[in-house]
Amino acid sequence: MSAPSLICDLARQFYDLGWVSGTGGGICIREGDKVIVAPSGVQKERMTPDQMFTLAIDGSVLERPADPALKPSECSSLFLAAIRLRNAGAVIHSHSMNAMLASLLFEREFVISELEMIKGIEGMSYHDRLVVPIIENTARECDLAASLEEAIAAYPKTQAVLVRRHGVYIWGSDWVRAKTQAECYDYLFRAAAEMHRLGIAPAAPKGATDASPSPRPASAFARR
Amino acid sequence: MSAPSLICDLARQFYDLGWVSGTGGGICIREGDKVIVAPSGVQKERMTPDQMFTLAIDGSVLERPADPALKPSECSSLFLAAIRLRNAGAVIHSHSMNAMLASLLFEREFVISELEMIKGIEGMSYHDRLVVPIIENTARECDLAASLEEAIAAYPKTQAVLVRRHGVYIWGSDWVRAKTQAECYDYLFRAAAEMHRLGIAPAAPKGATDASPSPRPASAFARR
Amino acid sequence: MSAPSLICDLARQFYDLGWVSGTGGGICIREGDKVIVAPSGVQKERMTPDQMFTLAIDGSVLERPADPALKPSECSSLFLAAIRLRNAGAVIHSHSMNAMLASLLFEREFVISELEMIKGIEGMSYHDRLVVPIIENTARECDLAASLEEAIAAYPKTQAVLVRRHGVYIWGSDWVRAKTQAECYDYLFRAAAEMHRLGIAPAAPKGATDASPSPRPASAFARR
Amino acid sequence: MSAPSLICDLARQFYDLGWVSGTGGGICIREGDKVIVAPSGVQKERMTPDQMFTLAIDGSVLERPADPALKPSECSSLFLAAIRLRNAGAVIHSHSMNAMLASLLFEREFVISELEMIKGIEGMSYHDRLVVPIIENTARECDLAASLEEAIAAYPKTQAVLVRRHGVYIWGSDWVRAKTQAECYDYLFRAAAEMHRLGIAPAAPKGATDASPSPRPASAFARR
Repeated sequence: MSAPSLICDLARQFYDLGWVSGTGGGICIREGDKVIVAPSGVQKERMTPDQMFTLAIDGSVLERPADPALKPSECSSLFLAAIRLRNAGAVIHSHSMNAMLASLLFEREFVISELEMIKGIEGMSYHDRLVVPIIENTARECDLAASLEEAIAAYPKTQAVLVRRHGVYIWGSDWVRAKTQAECYDYLFRAAAEMHRLGIAPAAPKGATDASPSPRPASAFARR
Repeated sequence: MSAPSLICDLARQFYDLGWVSGTGGGICIREGDKVIVAPSGVQKERMTPDQMFTLAIDGSVLERPADPALKPSECSSLFLAAIRLRNAGAVIHSHSMNAMLASLLFEREFVISELEMIKGIEGMSYHDRLVVPIIENTARECDLAASLEEAIAAYPKTQAVLVRRHGVYIWGSDWVRAKTQAECYDYLFRAAAEMHRLGIAPAAPKGATDASPSPRPASAFARR
Repeated sequence: MSAPSLICDLARQFYDLGWVSGTGGGICIREGDKVIVAPSGVQKERMTPDQMFTLAIDGSVLERPADPALKPSECSSLFLAAIRLRNAGAVIHSHSMNAMLASLLFEREFVISELEMIKGIEGMSYHDRLVVPIIENTARECDLAASLEEAIAAYPKTQAVLVRRHGVYIWGSDWVRAKTQAECYDYLFRAAAEMHRLGIAPAAPKGATDASPSPRPASAFARR
Repeated sequence: MSAPSLICDLARQFYDLGWVSGTGGGICIREGDKVIVAPSGVQKERMTPDQMFTLAIDGSVLERPADPALKPSECSSLFLAAIRLRNAGAVIHSHSMNAMLASLLFEREFVISELEMIKGIEGMSYHDRLVVPIIENTARECDLAASLEEAIAAYPKTQAVLVRRHGVYIWGSDWVRAKTQAECYDYLFRAAAEMHRLGIAPAAPKGATDASPSPRPASAFARR
């Protein structure tokens, strides 16, 4: 499937998952030194391949759709930041309620530990603490790029950055990796809220699990 | 796609979203000075284009389906009020559980602030307080029209009116705008209930964000 | 669409709604003095029309599928009770989590008032109290028939009977009416649990709304 | 439908149910002394039949897909344990949020009683206490096999084993039985969390229902 068709297909799937709605959220896919992005302000579950833009890594428009009213996604500068700084092959921007609520439950970092789905994130094993930096939202999406870049620099291992009261940016070396990681992150964001409601701490105290030679049994966190 | 086909297609989508069920809820689309509406009391996810009515803006029936048992949607007078008073191109009536619960969590106005999805509502930016008036429900749908008109007059910027213990009416300049706004409102109604359950205020105190030159950081509302 | 095909189609829809799963739940449709029912113990979302049974109103098998291993649904005696006692044209048995939880939140009767969706139930208006009797579950489905019949006799206006820790039986004069009522009941069961979690009483005190000449404003129940 | 096609079809259904995501979770189907399993680390809702492996009961690879990058599912050793020890015809591994949360709400065993859906589990009747053993998670999936085998030995009647902070393994004599049991277990895991949130005990005290000649009325657990 060509990248433009794939973007339309994935956007429909993300709509069903509640990640994109009201024209918000989206995905870009990189092909070599070109980046395919969707237009801004359109219904993400009803896009067609001929509406896509092709950008250079520096953001300049290489190819554009015939419809002169269309502009590239407002997420483009953020997508390109993750591509340049992390060599991402695809970047997903989700407005999932789970991501938004996760940004409210934590102060500066989302932290969770000892959940199987953590293993779906690149470089992470079950006993690692997963940390996702949270940046503050801005009135305009393009103003977010600077703080996204700072967060990426400050958290060299992260594959995602949460935006407070907004959603999350998640990337990967290709679209499959970006999407499967996005599914894992979304599960973990939801798990944190569900655990919070049930009175269970989402993360073990710092130092309890990191590099621990004999990890504490998970049941230590379970309700008795 | 013709307006009658589009109404059937959107109604199926709204059924999957939980906005229309048990024959309740619906959508109308205006084409010039004609308004296409669905029949009353039918399963919204199983409608066919030949069941649609065409009304004039004054509510008179211009074209009707062959089946003599069908009557125009009971929402018609409310749909037409939004069309006349706001020049709406489409109006959606949703029975979403999120809208119904939002009408119970607030007294006279639903108020929410500093959420990215607020930007999906016409004329709103991230730091604006989104206010949706709530009108009391009546035993018959047609008796709601007067209070809907009052609310529209009293809230000249609103794109939606909540009906207590019932649902919401949402409009836009065309069907795309009405639908994408409806997705944003539904997200925000749900967000208010989720935040309520997590002990987080859905809106900053009045005056804290409106026209504030240096907006408070969103994290001020986050749980610590 | 023939009744056998329609049953298969509706069962797929009910599976997506979470009403039938693990072979539980189902629907029967009456055609004159014949009743079409699904087989027992099969995956409800994967049935085919040639697996259906045709029963007489007294429960005797008029036609059966070729597969000798199939038996008529265990719900048959309950379906036939609603058909005989209420002249139902279709009966739905749902294992919806919403129905099951509703049976735990109330003692002998589920009661809810002043919600728009109540109007979707036959004979009910917005200011009526909707009452659904709750019968105790039994180890075998067929042993439920006697108490279902008692509940139907004791609540001559009800269109549904909840079964504690199990689900609900809902009927109507035809399949459309049964299904749209089932959607309304399911919404109301869920609404009661959601309102319970938000600290809002699902029903006004008895007498406050019944036949009240000037109904109390709904906002009287809203959180302040 | 051939087993490879069926696995792809069921995996799409499980994706929609939230049981498999981020490449996690899966299903195997036994045909005589061969076991069909999916590859490791792929998107479960986008698999094709030509990607499947055929294993012997001892785990040796009999047939493999053309793509040399593919390896058999990491769940294979656990799947084969249930097949060898219980003569299972199919095994499902679910990452459902319901299963994961259930593993946090109980210490060593998940216990629930007096819910109709319990009857969907082999050998169980309505008044039986359903017990599912919970084993601790490990950093690598293959290291779970030993404790899964121990749990299967210690609970000779169980059809499922929960894995703390991870998910659940469920089996049956064929794929239909495995899948319908998985639906029942998932319902029961969710029911326990919902009941917990509503302040209702998921199980009667031990001894109250087991082999009780006159079972306590279910209403004894209902909120008053």
